[in-house]
Amino acid sequence: MTAATGRSPVQAILDALHARYAGVRDGAVASYIPELAKADPDRFGICLATADGHVYEAGDTRHEFTIQSISKPFVYGLALDDHGAEFMRGKVGVEPSGDAFNAISLHKATGRPVNPMINAGAIATTGQVKAATPEERLARILGMFARYTGRPMRVDADVYESESRTGHRNRAIGHLLRNFDVLEDDPTAAVDVYFRQCSIAVRCVDLAVMGATLANQGINPVTGVRAIEDANVEHVLSVMASCGMYDFSGGWIDTVGMPAKSGVGGGVLAVLPGQLGIGVFSPRLDEQGNSARAKLVCEELSRIWQLHQFNPPSSPRSSLRLSWTAAERGSTRSRHAAECACLRDEGGRIRVVEVQGNLAFSTTESVVREIMARPAGTRAVIVDFHHATAANEAAARLFATLAAGVAADGTAIFFTHARHLADLPGRMAASGEAGGDVERLFRFPSTDQALEWCEDELLCEWMPARSAWAGDLRGFEIAAGLDDAEIGILGRLLERRTYAEGDLVVRQGDEAAGLFLVTRGRVGVWLGEPGAGARVASFSAGTMVGELAFIDGDRRSANVVAEGTVECAVFDVGDFRRLAETHPRIHAAILRNIAAALATKLRRANRQISVLGAQVP
Amino acid sequence: MTAATGRSPVQAILDALHARYAGVRDGAVASYIPELAKADPDRFGICLATADGHVYEAGDTRHEFTIQSISKPFVYGLALDDHGAEFMRGKVGVEPSGDAFNAISLHKATGRPVNPMINAGAIATTGQVKAATPEERLARILGMFARYTGRPMRVDADVYESESRTGHRNRAIGHLLRNFDVLEDDPTAAVDVYFRQCSIAVRCVDLAVMGATLANQGINPVTGVRAIEDANVEHVLSVMASCGMYDFSGGWIDTVGMPAKSGVGGGVLAVLPGQLGIGVFSPRLDEQGNSARAKLVCEELSRIWQLHQFNPPSSPRSSLRLSWTAAERGSTRSRHAAECACLRDEGGRIRVVEVQGNLAFSTTESVVREIMARPAGTRAVIVDFHHATAANEAAARLFATLAAGVAADGTAIFFTHARHLADLPGRMAASGEAGGDVERLFRFPSTDQALEWCEDELLCEWMPARSAWAGDLRGFEIAAGLDDAEIGILGRLLERRTYAEGDLVVRQGDEAAGLFLVTRGRVGVWLGEPGAGARVASFSAGTMVGELAFIDGDRRSANVVAEGTVECAVFDVGDFRRLAETHPRIHAAILRNIAAALATKLRRANRQISVLGAQVP
Repeated sequence: MTAATGRSPVQAILDALHARYAGVRDGAVASYIPELAKADPDRFGICLATADGHVYEAGDTRHEFTIQSISKPFVYGLALDDHGAEFMRGKVGVEPSGDAFNAISLHKATGRPVNPMINAGAIATTGQVKAATPEERLARILGMFARYTGRPMRVDADVYESESRTGHRNRAIGHLLRNFDVLEDDPTAAVDVYFRQCSIAVRCVDLAVMGATLANQGINPVTGVRAIEDANVEHVLSVMASCGMYDFSGGWIDTVGMPAKSGVGGGVLAVLPGQLGIGVFSPRLDEQGNSARAKLVCEELSRIWQLHQFNPPSSPRSSLRLSWTAAERGSTRSRHAAECACLRDEGGRIRVVEVQGNLAFSTTESVVREIMARPAGTRAVIVDFHHATAANEAAARLFATLAAGVAADGTAIFFTHARHLADLPGRMAASGEAGGDVERLFRFPSTDQALEWCEDELLCEWMPARSAWAGDLRGFEIAAGLDDAEIGILGRLLERRTYAEGDLVVRQGDEAAGLFLVTRGRVGVWLGEPGAGARVASFSAGTMVGELAFIDGDRRSANVVAEGTVECAVFDVGDFRRLAETHPRIHAAILRNIAAALATKLRRANRQISVLGAQVP
Repeated sequence: MTAATGRSPVQAILDALHARYAGVRDGAVASYIPELAKADPDRFGICLATADGHVYEAGDTRHEFTIQSISKPFVYGLALDDHGAEFMRGKVGVEPSGDAFNAISLHKATGRPVNPMINAGAIATTGQVKAATPEERLARILGMFARYTGRPMRVDADVYESESRTGHRNRAIGHLLRNFDVLEDDPTAAVDVYFRQCSIAVRCVDLAVMGATLANQGINPVTGVRAIEDANVEHVLSVMASCGMYDFSGGWIDTVGMPAKSGVGGGVLAVLPGQLGIGVFSPRLDEQGNSARAKLVCEELSRIWQLHQFNPPSSPRSSLRLSWTAAERGSTRSRHAAECACLRDEGGRIRVVEVQGNLAFSTTESVVREIMARPAGTRAVIVDFHHATAANEAAARLFATLAAGVAADGTAIFFTHARHLADLPGRMAASGEAGGDVERLFRFPSTDQALEWCEDELLCEWMPARSAWAGDLRGFEIAAGLDDAEIGILGRLLERRTYAEGDLVVRQGDEAAGLFLVTRGRVGVWLGEPGAGARVASFSAGTMVGELAFIDGDRRSANVVAEGTVECAVFDVGDFRRLAETHPRIHAAILRNIAAALATKLRRANRQISVLGAQVP
């Protein structure tokens, strides 16, 4: 099926903003180099890319212009990837200067530029990109931008020529940096690469995707390619936040509330970490050198969509999806009525906590708090990660410490449905907090399996003498209301069979020829190949399997497999039908008992539905 | 039941950090006024408060010290509440200065201090707090801090005396501000209130709760009291981020990544917006005037728990809880088999989208995108807010635009279970985007009611001629497999009854005496008083109600009420039992049919369980 038509509400707002601000003619195109002065001042594009890679565009989002100073934080990121944050802090500071972007703000003694967003800091940064030759350095920089944008990048030759012809102040900075040994090689080569880096052609949509890449922990969400090490993203965004918008950096954080960088080519790139990137392109600049329309657009987007990073909605508890006990919803094991009654009474001692979304400190802390507040006497906690999308190191550490503490309290704890969180067990082990074998915590792949095991443990504790009913027909619900003589008649109709571990008791697709009373052991019900498909239920001694054969006589809908040695008493459907003629009272009683069993299962299913649909506490 | 014992993983880390850094003796207690020099240098407290009001403490978290410069952003917030951000920007800037905290950084022409975190800006800010007298001004400041901390606040008289005796530089600043008319009244009075404000006694735990209040959109999460207008929180945190940590502000954002403020009393307050507040107290200061241990603690907390605000996990999709169609899970209405078959075939045209957590721009955008991507031919969308905890204006605006767009496409859209989001309909209406009557969107309180209505509409469209079966016994599943003669016998046993709107068909608690075949109209099933309790199911023409009376004969578990004019054919349980003797074949067939009906309901319930337990797409 194709998707319905219609314009997204997000698109509608971008279109409206574009229409509203297209009329703004404030500011002037940059003219300090001749080539920039040629820009069409009316060009105007707005683009938003989400951290999961959806792109919204309005206006001239595919028109090329030069990146200029927007290159600075990205090349800083490349240098951080090459050398690490500690080394780079020795070369370039991270404090706002209060001076103009082209001021030669070097530390008097060390010559260290105050930050990488002023020209001196940017040139020093470019000089740190690892390369044997200037050509290789430029190629690495272009390659880095290609990872951020998802397309090959190139230098605009005309703008580069223009920059190079007029860039004497930047050459002076290069020589001063060489004088202080901040640059270690030929400074003219570093300055030349810097001119080329500023002349790279980008489009508004590129800026948004670059921003979304920083919002997405360094991975381009459209292509899936990593553009910068995760650990360095925060350093890049920090210098954008503290000194990305020239002398309006404090005002920008105050009014827009997103780390951002502007360039004299008319581009502005803003990032809402974890959420989205914004690109705006409009060449007319205001007095501080920032695109005038871009400032208005970003301020309004921040206002109407409440994107200011310092006043988000609070997040706690949104990762706690559901918390329930085995008394409310048991495993898929069918058990004898006496066992079911015991689990209804004591099942509150087994707690399942389902988490969802991205697990980081705050979201995990609320889950951990829920588990810490479990009632005294809780025997087991199962943490179900089925709906979790990721768990970072902080979450892994909290879960590791939690597991050690809960286990020390004598409560079993299992982590289930975590196969897609491949890093989680390793991270928990690496934290050194888990206090034992992390593998054991993950030994049950599914909550159902963990729950079944925990129920068995609980039954061992609370009904040590169960299994007395195993061989006695009187214990089966199918025989309810029959007197001894009638049970004798029924018993003589049953065929005793024994199965070894792994034997097929019922084969999927076969004609349904009988009902199985499990008199010893346990059988598992599998959709598809046993061991390969899904184990959807199990039945232990005292329960019956396959009663629908007596009702609708369809073919078997699943495989039933012996788990260990199993004994069954089999009731043939033909024998049952003949009872209608020979012993109508027994026939009717059995029919009624089967209907009652179905009614019980239906009530149980309805209880599960109400648990599953329940409000998070 | 009491909670299990054991130490929280969060507590364990705070204790470990406290133990590790208690040995650090770097830095020196502030000595510029005699009273501060008396502080015990070994005091050390660490406190973390979550945005939902849970407090973790380690060390000297209840020891009092003076707030000093940490008062500045909070008094700035009070002035913002009094005058608004625009007015305050005219009095005090928001740019980092690059100068020392006590520099007299005033704009040359206007005398405007560069930001409210330097002394000049703070004194100018204190002077703006609305009050008729200096006493009232101090009282308002103390009252404001009491809302943030949840306890009465007081000035430490000794420290105030000491500040006042030695504060000549600050008095000079006051006179300069008066000279520029930034202060409009007696500057010595403003400076005196400023000395007192800096001498307010706080505790480490107070700082954490103050931080959590800013993290929680201005509402103290422990007391529920609002301390600052929501809209001003971002302005307070912005100046903390850009200039809160003296000349280490850029470095702090780089390494810690949380807006923060320190004071020479040894306190540091840090905020992770939306998530938590941190307070650390240790009087030894480093060269930049920040508590040396607090810096180490905050850097380590940020590192191990990955709290850096500029590199959070990405959030998209975590607010989309579940998306399903009426083909997978219908309303609680029981319908005739032919209608059920139609809804299985066409129910995919009705889509239910369950959202959860805090709905803001990014989280709502992903929900909106899911709805925009609905297949062509979708007749209705139901957005279920049962698990949503909040929806801000941005979310309301997106939902309003979405509703207008979806409706324009010819798809019905309903918002259900939104009663706890009291602001949502008003915010949607206020956005002017909803394009019609917002009330109509919310007219069904529950998803079940909306679903039932949408199913009825779908059946009108796809089965315009249904109801042919209404009076004919042959259409009821209970009569399956009976020949005409047998149906004649069954028909003569049934008693026809007619009910008017609101009549009780079955009363909860009554003995179950019969089974009802609904031959016309619809009945609703209510737990508790009809209209007041919960309507848990409904049955329309062609279905049967109360068949469990034939199986287990318990008392009625619910009230059944006629919704409009209803006709039923009633089958008495005594008549049914007598059939076992008089017509055993009919009796057995009916029993089998009831068992089959239960089996069908069980399969449907199991399908619902698998939908409810399903992975988010």
